[in-house]
Amino acid sequence: MSTSRRIYVQGSRADIRVPMREILQEDSITDKGIQPNPPIPLYDVSGAYGEQDFNPQNPLPFIREKWIDERNDCDRQPENRRRAKSGCNVTQLSYARRGIITPEMEFVAIRERVKIDELIQKPEYQNLLKQHQGLPLGFDMPQSIHEITPEFVRQEIAAGRAIIPCNINHLELEPMIIGRAFRVKINANIGTSAVSSSPDEELAKTMGVLRFGADTLMDLSTGEKIHQTRENIIRHAPVPVGTVPIYQALERVGGIAEDLSWSIMRDILEEQALQGVDYFTIHAGVLLSHIPLAKERLTGIVSRGGAIMARWCMTHRQENFLYTHFDEICEIMKSYDVAFSLGDGLRPGSIADANDEAQFAELHTLGELTQKAWQHDVQVMIEGPGHVPLQRVRANVDEAFKHCFDAPFYTLGPLVTDIAPAYDHITSCVGATHIGAYGTSMLCCVTPKEHLGLPNKDDVRTGIVTYKIAAHAADLAKGFPGVQLRDNALSKARFEFRWKDQFHLSLDPELAKQYHDDTLPAEGAKTAHFCSMCGPKFCSMKISQEIEHFVM
Amino acid sequence: MSTSRRIYVQGSRADIRVPMREILQEDSITDKGIQPNPPIPLYDVSGAYGEQDFNPQNPLPFIREKWIDERNDCDRQPENRRRAKSGCNVTQLSYARRGIITPEMEFVAIRERVKIDELIQKPEYQNLLKQHQGLPLGFDMPQSIHEITPEFVRQEIAAGRAIIPCNINHLELEPMIIGRAFRVKINANIGTSAVSSSPDEELAKTMGVLRFGADTLMDLSTGEKIHQTRENIIRHAPVPVGTVPIYQALERVGGIAEDLSWSIMRDILEEQALQGVDYFTIHAGVLLSHIPLAKERLTGIVSRGGAIMARWCMTHRQENFLYTHFDEICEIMKSYDVAFSLGDGLRPGSIADANDEAQFAELHTLGELTQKAWQHDVQVMIEGPGHVPLQRVRANVDEAFKHCFDAPFYTLGPLVTDIAPAYDHITSCVGATHIGAYGTSMLCCVTPKEHLGLPNKDDVRTGIVTYKIAAHAADLAKGFPGVQLRDNALSKARFEFRWKDQFHLSLDPELAKQYHDDTLPAEGAKTAHFCSMCGPKFCSMKISQEIEHFVM
Repeated sequence: MSTSRRIYVQGSRADIRVPMREILQEDSITDKGIQPNPPIPLYDVSGAYGEQDFNPQNPLPFIREKWIDERNDCDRQPENRRRAKSGCNVTQLSYARRGIITPEMEFVAIRERVKIDELIQKPEYQNLLKQHQGLPLGFDMPQSIHEITPEFVRQEIAAGRAIIPCNINHLELEPMIIGRAFRVKINANIGTSAVSSSPDEELAKTMGVLRFGADTLMDLSTGEKIHQTRENIIRHAPVPVGTVPIYQALERVGGIAEDLSWSIMRDILEEQALQGVDYFTIHAGVLLSHIPLAKERLTGIVSRGGAIMARWCMTHRQENFLYTHFDEICEIMKSYDVAFSLGDGLRPGSIADANDEAQFAELHTLGELTQKAWQHDVQVMIEGPGHVPLQRVRANVDEAFKHCFDAPFYTLGPLVTDIAPAYDHITSCVGATHIGAYGTSMLCCVTPKEHLGLPNKDDVRTGIVTYKIAAHAADLAKGFPGVQLRDNALSKARFEFRWKDQFHLSLDPELAKQYHDDTLPAEGAKTAHFCSMCGPKFCSMKISQEIEHFVM
Repeated sequence: MSTSRRIYVQGSRADIRVPMREILQEDSITDKGIQPNPPIPLYDVSGAYGEQDFNPQNPLPFIREKWIDERNDCDRQPENRRRAKSGCNVTQLSYARRGIITPEMEFVAIRERVKIDELIQKPEYQNLLKQHQGLPLGFDMPQSIHEITPEFVRQEIAAGRAIIPCNINHLELEPMIIGRAFRVKINANIGTSAVSSSPDEELAKTMGVLRFGADTLMDLSTGEKIHQTRENIIRHAPVPVGTVPIYQALERVGGIAEDLSWSIMRDILEEQALQGVDYFTIHAGVLLSHIPLAKERLTGIVSRGGAIMARWCMTHRQENFLYTHFDEICEIMKSYDVAFSLGDGLRPGSIADANDEAQFAELHTLGELTQKAWQHDVQVMIEGPGHVPLQRVRANVDEAFKHCFDAPFYTLGPLVTDIAPAYDHITSCVGATHIGAYGTSMLCCVTPKEHLGLPNKDDVRTGIVTYKIAAHAADLAKGFPGVQLRDNALSKARFEFRWKDQFHLSLDPELAKQYHDDTLPAEGAKTAHFCSMCGPKFCSMKISQEIEHFVM
């Protein structure tokens, strides 16, 4: 029986239990008799929702509560919230630099290995573990699954090359790691806007997003009920949640960018940090002197946060207050372990504007801010574009590593052409795969509605699965240990006409099955040694299997 | 008023009229007053069906009849068919090598330039013509649109680096060119199978395929009525039509591969050539000695033609009759100007099998056959995979050029991962864009139903638009002169909220409009300076435009 089920891998202590999915496969029926196929373990972000009998109305378990409290470096706040004790720094970067391996670090090490070490020990399945060598890269990747230890995780974090976004007030979080030496991750954006959508809808989207495999969520809500929407999302999110706090700040000043101020922003950062937001996009790199560089652009400034800050700077003829108050921002971040996602407010909004002076001027500033954040032991990742033609994609990640000292890079696509609105999940998947292959650590999903309208549930599903493709193909290209196992297992199932195993091993089992059944719905067709594409007489795989009798 | 309309560009003689699409744009409303935007010309494959008042029930015009008859090298056959006179060679390669510039060559030169030379002369629109430099490639690309002359086309054909598939019995054909120095093209597969679909449905698909922009069609019909289906398709196709003749041969012997023979194949090649098929996929590279190399594969032989020939070879313990009779095949091809698409019968069917010994052994044989075909002045392109992880994609096109002497390369994807059935248009678009950027000349569309079932009309549309993305993004990456114009024009329209111009300039105007209208259906929203994504207050583009007042 082909089955997809939740399993847990136990860590060094009872409360480190890392969730995974496991596909139990059918046997192969060969000339030499029946041969079993191994269970295939898969990375799984769905948290408690991925358990067979978990009621999604129930609160998520507080898996991190004990880990955090044991460290004894937080003061308790009302409503089971926490803040670092005066003089304490509660960031994973701080622990890593102090040589401490936290439960969070061990959790992600086990998670990244996805139990493949167990399969490696079984000689009969070695053919499934074959993998092509990765790209030659300008940095080291683990060459074997055994290198991915908690200590390795600690080192990558200490060096600033990886982050675990994990606010001490996000007790429900199952830790995950973002860094080029690890699996490429994807983020999905959700959020209410003034024109459409409600908090309940956003919660339903959150569930969908987890089901299809987003590694983090960003709540980009604007409009009313912004606090309550975020609360709903965080409390139901076993994955890190990011926000762009300037959106809420702008709501608070009635949408008038000129009326923004540091004191308003500070209050909002505290409010969101206390709620448990795991990373903040902060557009502190949009400097007064950069703005004129965008003047000759075809499409100006297309980042919302970038445009808001540029407007503020130009109106007041003053330097960006996020830049001038950056140290104070760091003080807040390190009191909760909120990670920076340094926003690229001047990212290109079109192929024409890609890799221009405005973009790279800001990137230099982000490098300066990265160093400043690291002085506070605050975790940092760097945001990147956007819209870039294929031949200029790689330069983006190379430049980011160079100017931002190998901090993890996190991009939105990039789209490799502007001519396909309604298909921008695809135009951007091409760029995302490419930039992921060269070391970008996280890819922000783009849905088919990008540039056209607000995504609905189906659009979000399409966007996420498309980006799972980009992330996985990038992992293959980097040669991350063990990732080709899933391709191999699915291909073997395909060649042997094990349709149900194919569906379970695929990124979207439901849709794969539905497409198969569109043409051949009968139950028998799922064991048939042909399909509707060629029919029985023309099936190359059937002929090919028969040829083996001659060859062998 | 934003409009999309058919135009023609006149060549050196009255009957060379090259169809294009032209987008008439709305004016920009700026601080400095109203500024016009130029008409944007687009490549258009839709033939007479793209004319406003053409009745699709009418036969297509015989635009090539005079060109062919003037050459006076054909004998007339019944039903207005033709065959080369004894001793004559009617291929474009033969003409090119004799220094003759045919009307077909002039037609494609004009077509590739897409009228951009006219826009270049207008200084006020230079900003729209900005383009990023292309990739450094191991071969020369035209550096300016002016280099793309009929003589340039002739030289590329004479060198074997490009082909114009144009059977002398396909009078309805509007010539197009396949070669790395030109725009990347896409092919769409259609065809009946034993399990599903009818000739009428296939004709409806043909119309759809042209509407969304397939540059060539392959009729992969199996089952009954194979001749009539093909006749319908060719007579309604202004684009080249390719086939895999072994499929019809297999039908004729009742599906028993062992019963195939050269004499049956010869008859079918003659039958199809006389009908007007423009290129044949011939699996002559699957040699007896290659077949054991596929033994260790995870997924054996997945090409239908390859599996059929392998079975024949193994049963008879004889060399592939397509290989042993290759000279005779060339004799038929050159009598009608049918081009070879040398099939890759041993292409990998999974990531695991990519770039293996079996695949490259066959590629060497295809090189040998290329030279043989060229001795007959028969045009050749080379087929490629399939399934290849991103880091090994480029080697495929590099090896093809090396071993097949720069003959045009034509690939199916490749898919860069196997884990996403139902999304293989996307997994393969990533590989297709990449391989196109490095010089692959034509990309065979993959639909969402690949590996699962027969595509319906919507699937074919999705597959084609996805591959238009790959081809265009590859053109941008190669730096083909003028291709970024469409991106720039669409981006400028986007920044100025000219929604209708955006829709018209996009690859799928209907779907783009539909997605926009899903959230904001009112007519006024198509002139509104915001959209549903951010709402009016949070629109970065609106803020960005307002900032210009400060900056400038």
